Amino acid sequence: MEKINLAFTGLGQRGPGLLSMVLDTMPDVNVTALCDLYADRTAAAAEIVRARRGKEPFVTGDYHDLLYRDDVDCIIVSSSWHTHVQICVDAMNAGKPVGCEVGGAYDIEQCWELVRVYERTQTPIMLLENCCYGRDEMTVLNMIRLGVFGEPVHAEGGYQHDLRDEVALGHENRHYRIDEYKYRCGEIYPTHELGPIAKWLDVNRGNRMLTLTSMASKSRGLNSWIKEHRGGGYENADYHFAQGDVVTTMIKCARGETILLTHDTTLPRPYSRGGRFQGTKGIWSEDKHGVNIDGRTVSTSWTHNWDDIGLYYDEFEPELWKNYRANGVVAGHDGIDYLVFSALVHSLRNGLPMPVDVYDMASWMAVTALSEQSVAMGSMPVPVPDFTKGEWIRRGRDTSGPYSL
Amino acid sequence: MEKINLAFTGLGQRGPGLLSMVLDTMPDVNVTALCDLYADRTAAAAEIVRARRGKEPFVTGDYHDLLYRDDVDCIIVSSSWHTHVQICVDAMNAGKPVGCEVGGAYDIEQCWELVRVYERTQTPIMLLENCCYGRDEMTVLNMIRLGVFGEPVHAEGGYQHDLRDEVALGHENRHYRIDEYKYRCGEIYPTHELGPIAKWLDVNRGNRMLTLTSMASKSRGLNSWIKEHRGGGYENADYHFAQGDVVTTMIKCARGETILLTHDTTLPRPYSRGGRFQGTKGIWSEDKHGVNIDGRTVSTSWTHNWDDIGLYYDEFEPELWKNYRANGVVAGHDGIDYLVFSALVHSLRNGLPMPVDVYDMASWMAVTALSEQSVAMGSMPVPVPDFTKGEWIRRGRDTSGPYSL
Repeated sequence: MEKINLAFTGLGQRGPGLLSMVLDTMPDVNVTALCDLYADRTAAAAEIVRARRGKEPFVTGDYHDLLYRDDVDCIIVSSSWHTHVQICVDAMNAGKPVGCEVGGAYDIEQCWELVRVYERTQTPIMLLENCCYGRDEMTVLNMIRLGVFGEPVHAEGGYQHDLRDEVALGHENRHYRIDEYKYRCGEIYPTHELGPIAKWLDVNRGNRMLTLTSMASKSRGLNSWIKEHRGGGYENADYHFAQGDVVTTMIKCARGETILLTHDTTLPRPYSRGGRFQGTKGIWSEDKHGVNIDGRTVSTSWTHNWDDIGLYYDEFEPELWKNYRANGVVAGHDGIDYLVFSALVHSLRNGLPMPVDVYDMASWMAVTALSEQSVAMGSMPVPVPDFTKGEWIRRGRDTSGPYSL
Repeated sequence: MEKINLAFTGLGQRGPGLLSMVLDTMPDVNVTALCDLYADRTAAAAEIVRARRGKEPFVTGDYHDLLYRDDVDCIIVSSSWHTHVQICVDAMNAGKPVGCEVGGAYDIEQCWELVRVYERTQTPIMLLENCCYGRDEMTVLNMIRLGVFGEPVHAEGGYQHDLRDEVALGHENRHYRIDEYKYRCGEIYPTHELGPIAKWLDVNRGNRMLTLTSMASKSRGLNSWIKEHRGGGYENADYHFAQGDVVTTMIKCARGETILLTHDTTLPRPYSRGGRFQGTKGIWSEDKHGVNIDGRTVSTSWTHNWDDIGLYYDEFEPELWKNYRANGVVAGHDGIDYLVFSALVHSLRNGLPMPVDVYDMASWMAVTALSEQSVAMGSMPVPVPDFTKGEWIRRGRDTSGPYSL
């Protein structure tokens, strides 16, 4: 079996982690090229490749150098959010398949450009949304498809992660997420929760997002943290950050379901993606690690009861995860980094549709730009574009491979 | 000490429960008059009074008969939601103090009428929002006031209660809540969560609600339940209910906080008011029964940790609750029914301001009418009236009595 040759562009924080994971766990994958704006980063990454594989990767500071190399089969984009789309578009135009890390769009036109270039070039592209492959997210997906929850009605999720130190001090390590908080206000990181939800609700395949409304709280968390931990004289201690500490977004779907998203990264809190799914026959809650299913869950009081979802794994955990656990889960966000990369490589190797395709990518990333618009207009509802241009009504579920979602 | 004489109007479901609680636990209160549209209900309630107190109450089918009786000091309104405001207005105009059960407004004008009549007559009126007196809600309130959570930023709550049997079959017992689901769509029951939140955020006393946006899911839960439990030929089995199964509402406050409300009563789920409070120094979560406080909660991983709120009761549970527990909590929604009635009686007896006053009542009830407007207009944001007409900037916290909130 011929090896797939990957190039990585963007080696700040996420890139090196993924690089090591690939080198350690995927013998059928080579890493042949590395790119970053900073030479010390490419040098460090090249050392990782040499140490693990004994090979010398091509190294550059300009991602354009990756686009026409014969020893690159696919480009992994793990650079800053604001560079993702341009790199993806250039790669597709050069005929180089892309696996792109997650982030949101800055303008809807970027999303259309992704779709337009994909449709013209047919170059494979996948958004590497690892959370679509979470054990519970996939178990819930399976239960939904089997009708256990009845008709889908409502779903929730959030990116709820105390990132105060990372955001406030990131620039000390050339990590520029703080700029997103200084200049933007919206659902700036939606896909970890929206990805699984979109799959649960058949978005772009029998359903679509119709309209969206966002509201932002005031912004106080970063100022408070900086003053407490670095003092009032520190950079940005008194900066009036644009990004509200908690941004809530409501989305209405064509089939009538609602989606609730929460972005909450600059206040103290334990991590939670706040997953929740409700249908006419049952509910799943991530925070409760539980489900309540009509006819299955026994009620012992008027408040009703939660069953631990663990009781349902035997019956409903997908084969992919059962096999994965039997063979040993690979480190990296509870195993999902390995699964999403495996999905990319498997689809590339076998010429299968990408499990998170350009329409998913465009519509999920669009939520960021749309939420900024809604917040800016006082929580006015804004329409969500139909990037499939009507095909969502006819597009069926993809069941072509073991990683299909 | 002279006894306070109460009249009850509305003896369907809530009324008799409160009546028994008062007769069993409040020796300084008499119940002298009873009113309901149905004679069998007043007869049953009169029997309760006779059995517990050996006295014969006045009985009527028309609440107007209560308004000018010398043996009525205060009217308890526990009738259908849509009758609350008119009874309150008539009572205030007659100079009879009112304790009104919770519900939402049907139009903003009703809320203005409450304020207008109160300001002209100065007749005491209190919304009997029992959840304001919840043990955890009051502990959180105390922690907020003591600055433990830092600057308030975001709060959440919900009325999340599987009421399918009660709503679908209620008319078998002359309980008409089903009409609310047939004809309305919005946040039809907001105050159990909004009441405590409004107190946490100083709404009407240093803060106010500015704007609101609501979104409703499709309505499927009642149809599904009726067909499953009564069959497709049963009343309303195929009725297209207006009320979405899950209605989400976002509210922005003048000081910049956001409030998220969820109404979720027609799908399977365990009960939860979904309480959550976030400030610059900490978070409380009802579903996690936990808090995370900067400088107090120890982090043992990058996901951070929850402390059980039980660890904080010693330090932060208010005296009212500590004493209440020491003396024995009275049955009825974990003790809060007794506390809210005690607050009403204590305030009446001592001429103190009502802990949930007419401005609270008007603004909280207004959320229902406003959310209906927003849903009807595709989640357009709508302005929240300032029922204090600017006084919220100058009105300080009420600390006049042991039940002040």
